[in-house]
Amino acid sequence: MAANSNTTRQLSNTSPDISGPTIVLHRPQIPQNTGNISRLCVALKSELVITGKAGFQFDTAAVRRAGLDHWQHLKFSHHVKFADFFRGNSGRRYLGISKAGTENALKFDYRQSDVLVFGNETMGLPPALMGRLTCTLALPMVGPVRSLNLANSVAVVAYAYMNHVYGESLQPDSTLYPRTYYRKRQLG
Amino acid sequence: MAANSNTTRQLSNTSPDISGPTIVLHRPQIPQNTGNISRLCVALKSELVITGKAGFQFDTAAVRRAGLDHWQHLKFSHHVKFADFFRGNSGRRYLGISKAGTENALKFDYRQSDVLVFGNETMGLPPALMGRLTCTLALPMVGPVRSLNLANSVAVVAYAYMNHVYGESLQPDSTLYPRTYYRKRQLG
Repeated sequence: MAANSNTTRQLSNTSPDISGPTIVLHRPQIPQNTGNISRLCVALKSELVITGKAGFQFDTAAVRRAGLDHWQHLKFSHHVKFADFFRGNSGRRYLGISKAGTENALKFDYRQSDVLVFGNETMGLPPALMGRLTCTLALPMVGPVRSLNLANSVAVVAYAYMNHVYGESLQPDSTLYPRTYYRKRQLG
Repeated sequence: MAANSNTTRQLSNTSPDISGPTIVLHRPQIPQNTGNISRLCVALKSELVITGKAGFQFDTAAVRRAGLDHWQHLKFSHHVKFADFFRGNSGRRYLGISKAGTENALKFDYRQSDVLVFGNETMGLPPALMGRLTCTLALPMVGPVRSLNLANSVAVVAYAYMNHVYGESLQPDSTLYPRTYYRKRQLG
């Protein structure tokens, strides 16, 4: 799609009071996933926190390619131990996302300060970290897969949070994308 | 996470009346994205339709790797022209997802027979296809990115559909994952 040269400035100004959930990735292994998640975080003005040892260097080409040119807009920190981040943010709720979670992530009563915690692509959330969580959430699935792609899960849960916390005040702004070639038909 | 050897059978039986939206990818270019979307489609019992020429062979290792071992469970069809699929499904609503869309994809009044139509990773939806759509939807974004990763967008919109169409009847089933090592704390 054609890029508007003012897109960055305009988008930054549209929703000054809205920012997404803090997203923790514990020991992520696949750079493309972290790159896609970093792009999501910039789109939602979410802080991205990586805890533990990642399976790649943060400045690898794969991360940057998937994150496109947005890495410089990212609020990002890395903590060698999950406990270090946890201790500095003790007043917040830590919501672990796991296929074995007990609450429905689509219907959860999110609060603005909630922290979403995701395990890595192969192992999920380790037991030591599970013990620090406020509760665990899961995405409903109805077909025979064991899990979704990590970046897809992060995106779905982050948008469920956005929808619950900001509701009608969160709207797409098609005026930022001045394309006129599509027609809107009557909804039949 | 530990796989339950009965997971596939059990998951298939949990929600016999629930199936996800039909998802159309028009001329997808990146095999990893289509692989991740195919996994999502199996998880939601969605039909995946590819229209136009894809930028890769459907049986490439990258598609299969991202789709893991679930490709055999996928309801899949390929139509060389979008119009061929469109003519065979003329009673349905075609919802195009685009950053320039006019309706909020998080709040949309989805119906069970809706078809979600996604353009490719670099070009979005072409004008000729736009003219056939019932309407266009967008995901709200508040930060300076031009778009989300395609598979992430598909996942978010598909789950918005699931939540709207099936509501409380769609629940995660943690009993399928008999893990006991996480604790549920009081929600503070």
